[in-house]
Amino acid sequence: MLLSELAAALGLALRGEDREVAGVNTLEAAGPDQVSFLANPKYTGMLATTRAAAVIVDAAHADAAPAALVSANPYLDFARALTLFARPQGCLTGRSELAFIHPDAKVADDAAVYPFAFVAARAEIGPGCVLFPHTYVGEDCVLGEGGILHPGATLMAGTRLGARVLVGPGTVLGSEGFGFASDAAGRMKIPQVGVVEVGDDVEIGANAAVDRAALDKTRIGHRCKIDNLVQVGHNVVVGDDCVLVSQVGISGSTKVGSRVVMAGQVGVAGHLNIGDGVVIGPKAGVPHDIPAGKVVGGIPAMDRGLYLRNLALAPKLPELARRVASLERELAALKELLPKGDEHES
Amino acid sequence: MLLSELAAALGLALRGEDREVAGVNTLEAAGPDQVSFLANPKYTGMLATTRAAAVIVDAAHADAAPAALVSANPYLDFARALTLFARPQGCLTGRSELAFIHPDAKVADDAAVYPFAFVAARAEIGPGCVLFPHTYVGEDCVLGEGGILHPGATLMAGTRLGARVLVGPGTVLGSEGFGFASDAAGRMKIPQVGVVEVGDDVEIGANAAVDRAALDKTRIGHRCKIDNLVQVGHNVVVGDDCVLVSQVGISGSTKVGSRVVMAGQVGVAGHLNIGDGVVIGPKAGVPHDIPAGKVVGGIPAMDRGLYLRNLALAPKLPELARRVASLERELAALKELLPKGDEHES
Amino acid sequence: MLLSELAAALGLALRGEDREVAGVNTLEAAGPDQVSFLANPKYTGMLATTRAAAVIVDAAHADAAPAALVSANPYLDFARALTLFARPQGCLTGRSELAFIHPDAKVADDAAVYPFAFVAARAEIGPGCVLFPHTYVGEDCVLGEGGILHPGATLMAGTRLGARVLVGPGTVLGSEGFGFASDAAGRMKIPQVGVVEVGDDVEIGANAAVDRAALDKTRIGHRCKIDNLVQVGHNVVVGDDCVLVSQVGISGSTKVGSRVVMAGQVGVAGHLNIGDGVVIGPKAGVPHDIPAGKVVGGIPAMDRGLYLRNLALAPKLPELARRVASLERELAALKELLPKGDEHES
Repeated sequence: MLLSELAAALGLALRGEDREVAGVNTLEAAGPDQVSFLANPKYTGMLATTRAAAVIVDAAHADAAPAALVSANPYLDFARALTLFARPQGCLTGRSELAFIHPDAKVADDAAVYPFAFVAARAEIGPGCVLFPHTYVGEDCVLGEGGILHPGATLMAGTRLGARVLVGPGTVLGSEGFGFASDAAGRMKIPQVGVVEVGDDVEIGANAAVDRAALDKTRIGHRCKIDNLVQVGHNVVVGDDCVLVSQVGISGSTKVGSRVVMAGQVGVAGHLNIGDGVVIGPKAGVPHDIPAGKVVGGIPAMDRGLYLRNLALAPKLPELARRVASLERELAALKELLPKGDEHES
Repeated sequence: MLLSELAAALGLALRGEDREVAGVNTLEAAGPDQVSFLANPKYTGMLATTRAAAVIVDAAHADAAPAALVSANPYLDFARALTLFARPQGCLTGRSELAFIHPDAKVADDAAVYPFAFVAARAEIGPGCVLFPHTYVGEDCVLGEGGILHPGATLMAGTRLGARVLVGPGTVLGSEGFGFASDAAGRMKIPQVGVVEVGDDVEIGANAAVDRAALDKTRIGHRCKIDNLVQVGHNVVVGDDCVLVSQVGISGSTKVGSRVVMAGQVGVAGHLNIGDGVVIGPKAGVPHDIPAGKVVGGIPAMDRGLYLRNLALAPKLPELARRVASLERELAALKELLPKGDEHES
Repeated sequence: MLLSELAAALGLALRGEDREVAGVNTLEAAGPDQVSFLANPKYTGMLATTRAAAVIVDAAHADAAPAALVSANPYLDFARALTLFARPQGCLTGRSELAFIHPDAKVADDAAVYPFAFVAARAEIGPGCVLFPHTYVGEDCVLGEGGILHPGATLMAGTRLGARVLVGPGTVLGSEGFGFASDAAGRMKIPQVGVVEVGDDVEIGANAAVDRAALDKTRIGHRCKIDNLVQVGHNVVVGDDCVLVSQVGISGSTKVGSRVVMAGQVGVAGHLNIGDGVVIGPKAGVPHDIPAGKVVGGIPAMDRGLYLRNLALAPKLPELARRVASLERELAALKELLPKGDEHES
């Protein structure tokens, strides 16, 4: 692709010579047939030494680049440029004869079904879907158009995906919810007869798990981004545009608003309400509702400002304890010096 | 099914009109052909508005329901009712010709083996078992009667399951234990030649991992319920009737008693003894033995009462530090006012 | 194998009668045809009662054993002995006709490819490799000699493994990195066009996930040992000889030195530098760089000594708070007793 064609595709102005380019890379690693980008000012010095054919850069730094694609948001336009060069995973098209498709399933004509994919009775696979090897689509599942199931992705019966959903390798949707009723005789499993429903444009990473509901449904909203090894319990509702970073766990029946961000290894108790726009810091433990818009961290989750002070204080606790002991000694010494008339008060 | 038939099946009294019903749902979502239940008094008001055909409810609230199935334990009887209506996952029976069964394996005549299941040499699959697609049963594995391996469940060589065990999608039993011996030349792997043994009526969720023992066996007791993404290290022994909630990790060689409950994201160090009936709160870190019957929480795990006070105190630590600094200033000011004769003491 | 042959193979001296032996077991469980070992002095008493044919033991304890294989490092020689007796997993050789191998892939003649393995276009499988059932090797992947992919292991396109790498069941290498660029319209995925590269002699457990890089590569160094359910984010670089225990999570672009050990459930933030030889205790949260050689623990990670004092203090915090309140009361009482002239100072 010519730089001028790339500029046109991205709606950016090109300053400098036109050349053929074949990809995108970092300022350090880019070769003369690649485009790079400057999103973080601390790398400005590298504009002088990069071998890149051109740099996606804001107007203020454009003159320092060998050639520039001038952008108001270089990081976003870098992502857009990558999209133009990226090749999708996969090497086959059509329906493999080594796949199993139940006669009662409906698979769109242009869907790709790889060897060893399994599609159960009454499942519906929409146009443009790709089922990689070792994927499982249970009974009555529905995949909207453009859905991609990476190798080993497993959708248990009744799971419904919106359009353009990507389910990562080894991820499971619709596993049994973890619900038991107890009596004197022990625990009895509560059959989990609900389903999982996922909105449009959702992306889920590798080896995550979203449980089916006991009754009704577990729901993941539109445009959510869910990272590897995340756990979503039964009957959880996650709103639109949420980000759940790796190893987050959300317990059953919790309602998560829209635009919520949970950092890595966060744990949220069950039956809670997490308001719209809440941001929860890494490793936090959330035992209570969080009102909309709050930024929290820690165990238990508390306001970010308070949490940061708490975090700064943690390494000073032993010293604090020593200071309290010292105060006690000094105060006792002081009392020795004073008239004894107050002893009946203590 | 008629309400009267359902009442008879559950051993409950029906108060109200008999009708045909086809399922169970919440008070809010139930339609006129469904049964609902009242287990939590805070939803009592919904008895007046539910469209359910009948409600499983205790005697005290029976008159408020449109029709009632009178129960001493409505939540348990709701679970029992669900069991009568729930349809199991799956759409095939018999042995698929697309499965691989080693000629030296023994598979019960009535077991279901789906396409792309793999059964290795000398494995034994008991009566009524179901092997979903992409399941792997290694050499010398034994599955008791009624075992179910959900899609992608993997049993490495030598794993033995009791009767009626459910292994969730993507879960691995018998993976290599994490053991290495060191010398000056570096780490050397200790071959893990033990196995995993699982009792009767165990249920394991999605994408969990239980390592094989170095020698001897890793054991999961009868009726244990293990949630998604749980890690059980090599040579761990878990007693009967335990509950391990999602993302729990138990390090190698730890012995867990019976009826132990570990909440989400708990971590337990290796070579410990966790007594019978211990309950460990969410996100706790356990570095030492816990005697039988204790309820603990926190890092390090401490008595629940102490932990709850600790938790309540956490957000107040910065204020506590300020109070100590203030005490120091006040005490210093006080000492200024006093006769100087004591200075040699400090 | 005769004890004398075992002694010769291990380079150890045999004291006692020669006998045929068939395996290795603990002092407690070993039978008369098995060898055992004494690595922990607390089990010395069992030398008198073990039924083992011989014990791998240091010179100081050799006389107490029924027969002895005298070793300077009994634990290491136990591991070496196990290696001689251990049987590898698996029951097939050669290429199964039930596997899918793309015509443009290159598979070494002596590699074993099990039923339902999938090898994509341009992948290269080295000599002696074993691909168990349900493994996926994406386009342009390279497996060095002696690589083993356990059932369900998934290598997305471009993943490169060194020699003798073991990838555990259900583990995913090369899943999409978790990267998004935001503008007013919402989040846009940054295509992840980099790869994962793994050094020689690496072992990875079950259901772990290592993301592909956005650009360039995510790298795992030689001889690293990675446990179950570990998460490694995109563009992370892990040096040689590291140990990552179960459920560790490392966020994107962090550089980990060589010989680093992270205990279970550790979380490390993104874009950090963790120096050579660092040891991070269980459940720690690392928000900042750690210099080489440090041993740290806690949230936030702090020097081990400080952390241990902190840990010991944690259960005493409520008492500390009471002591501060008591100091405040006493000081107030004291001030009452003093002349009022100082009031303007406070």
